[in-house]
Amino acid sequence: MENFTFYSPTFFVFGKDTENEAGSYVKKFGGNKVLIHYGGNSAKRSGLLDRVEASLQKEGIPYVMLGGVKPNPRSGLVYEGIELCRKESVDFVLAVGGGSAIDSAKAIAAGTVYDGDFWDFYSGKPITEALPVGTILTIAAAGSEGSPDSVITKEEGMFKRGASGDAIRPKFSILNPALTQTLPAYQSAAGITDIMAHLYERYLTNTKEVEVTDRLIEALLLTMKHEGPRVIADPDNYEARANIMWAGMMAHNNSCGVGRSQDWNSHNIEHELSALYDCAHGAGLAVTMPAVFKYVMNHDVMRFAKAAVRVWGCQMDFDHPEVTALEGIEAFRSFLISIGMPKNFAELGAKEEDIPKLVEVLCRGDGRDGSIYGFVKLTEEDCTKIYQMMV
Amino acid sequence: MENFTFYSPTFFVFGKDTENEAGSYVKKFGGNKVLIHYGGNSAKRSGLLDRVEASLQKEGIPYVMLGGVKPNPRSGLVYEGIELCRKESVDFVLAVGGGSAIDSAKAIAAGTVYDGDFWDFYSGKPITEALPVGTILTIAAAGSEGSPDSVITKEEGMFKRGASGDAIRPKFSILNPALTQTLPAYQSAAGITDIMAHLYERYLTNTKEVEVTDRLIEALLLTMKHEGPRVIADPDNYEARANIMWAGMMAHNNSCGVGRSQDWNSHNIEHELSALYDCAHGAGLAVTMPAVFKYVMNHDVMRFAKAAVRVWGCQMDFDHPEVTALEGIEAFRSFLISIGMPKNFAELGAKEEDIPKLVEVLCRGDGRDGSIYGFVKLTEEDCTKIYQMMV
Repeated sequence: MENFTFYSPTFFVFGKDTENEAGSYVKKFGGNKVLIHYGGNSAKRSGLLDRVEASLQKEGIPYVMLGGVKPNPRSGLVYEGIELCRKESVDFVLAVGGGSAIDSAKAIAAGTVYDGDFWDFYSGKPITEALPVGTILTIAAAGSEGSPDSVITKEEGMFKRGASGDAIRPKFSILNPALTQTLPAYQSAAGITDIMAHLYERYLTNTKEVEVTDRLIEALLLTMKHEGPRVIADPDNYEARANIMWAGMMAHNNSCGVGRSQDWNSHNIEHELSALYDCAHGAGLAVTMPAVFKYVMNHDVMRFAKAAVRVWGCQMDFDHPEVTALEGIEAFRSFLISIGMPKNFAELGAKEEDIPKLVEVLCRGDGRDGSIYGFVKLTEEDCTKIYQMMV
Repeated sequence: MENFTFYSPTFFVFGKDTENEAGSYVKKFGGNKVLIHYGGNSAKRSGLLDRVEASLQKEGIPYVMLGGVKPNPRSGLVYEGIELCRKESVDFVLAVGGGSAIDSAKAIAAGTVYDGDFWDFYSGKPITEALPVGTILTIAAAGSEGSPDSVITKEEGMFKRGASGDAIRPKFSILNPALTQTLPAYQSAAGITDIMAHLYERYLTNTKEVEVTDRLIEALLLTMKHEGPRVIADPDNYEARANIMWAGMMAHNNSCGVGRSQDWNSHNIEHELSALYDCAHGAGLAVTMPAVFKYVMNHDVMRFAKAAVRVWGCQMDFDHPEVTALEGIEAFRSFLISIGMPKNFAELGAKEEDIPKLVEVLCRGDGRDGSIYGFVKLTEEDCTKIYQMMV
């Protein structure tokens, strides 16, 4: 195991009706004037925003509102939010929504107290200062509610890039599984896929002797395998939603990823898809992961065989471990298709003729040197082949 | 799943040589004058205390020292520590040792800023204020490095009781697995048992539909089952020590125990043994748990069968689940014996004729009403039978 530090100071409030406590938690964490940052109209229609506003009013905390966050959140709205926060002397950003609203809120929180262009943070500068952020989560997927990370798409060039720093870790996150019951099945499935991707990106490691984190990752994958189909079959299943929601947080606060190298090639390869086609990130990952896994499988066959046996219930082929490894990848792919995820470029809305452009932005964009680095180093040629496998 | 809050703000520093960073972390968390609180001579002999002192000196932070913490730490030394902290205007308590040193440090930290008798906290008063605490862990066992809990034994009456509060959660905890390599095998095994007990106490729940936490607990039990025998066979195995050390923290920071009722009957039943005979807590648990589990097994046979299959690798007997359940308990007992733990009263140094006294203190001591309450309610008669099963 490698040396590491681990810090996850977010105060989690989990369960039914907990969004009504938002005001008291803003107060507890020192907010005096709030930006409520949210996405589309569903939070409004469902009455969620009304309940959040009421809870702030109850505590006598003034607020301004900025909606309109889209999936794969854009830099344009972040600039708007920063300007609003400065103008209104906002000192606390409260995100209401999924990973997009939270990531956008984190960018606004960091940008408001920074002299330069907030995009600096998405070009490699660590975030060391930000307004405090709180979240009310409505989609189990991104894990942003418990992470120090944020991903934003820059409109000029459509670069999708990440930033990180403990300063943007949410002070509190409110997780009410009931809020996720109204999600369309496709979005639920995309969230399930994203959570499983966060687990696989950590599972694919070159660090030896990490049984504890291997086992924790497998535990969360097994949970998703069991609970995922239950919410697709029965969207109102609160218990299944609750199990997925906690798994989604644990999958990405890094408690199961410490002390080991991680992959993140699938995320990088997918980011170009959702940036270009504006598809759901989880849907893009569903098409990307099986291709990447098959392409890199021989780098460590036993690791893929382990996942196959321990997570997917395959029988180990002791004479031909590569058969078991491949069987596990196929089982994962079948699982993703069974919950309604796309299986190829066509179903995703992606086009074969765009592959050179995808590879160019992926491997050369934003100062990259022609390769991406994870579990395996992938060159432009490798990435081209992987995209072709997805067609 | 039940509603819950979860908060684990400790900054963990994990890996080789990390004890040399103690001074910089004390500084980061605002300490200006430190009490170094430790146990016996091993920390002195090994040079660990010298390294910790050097790291404080390097940061120019003055300190006083108080050693002598014993296993099952006593109230007497806590009173002494409180007096010393007040006299010396200490504002940060740094524990160097295992759960006993940390629990004693937490009691001192809470008692120093409290007007009354610190034992109030161990009689049910929540701890809301304390000096900040940091830890340098030398035994993977108690999980106190990441928990809001402390257990102290009151010398008058030999009551062993717990206290709790976020104020005594360590600000930082330094975990260097190499520091645990010099532990005698018996102490390593007692630590392994204690960690597994923290997992079983959470596993035994009456809450339905908690797959995510079931799976996480099983993951950590599987890790202990794999890594435990490796450190007993090879005490210098850093990697096995590292896996156990992170599992020990995760087992008790409650990330795998949220949203579900928990048991803690085995801990309560054991506490009277280590209070009376001063045996190692883990050793007492090794004798206690199999007896308790067999006694309560019929309350939820399928839960014990699940542990048998998923953790202990038993084949499910679908016609007679109780056979599988019992097989899992026996497998756990055999495992504990195989790593060198005692299997009965005689090996523990406990006496059958003391059972009435043990039951009296357990069920009537410190205001209890004649029963203890966990996975199953246990009366004085139940507890008598359980202690008799351990003879």
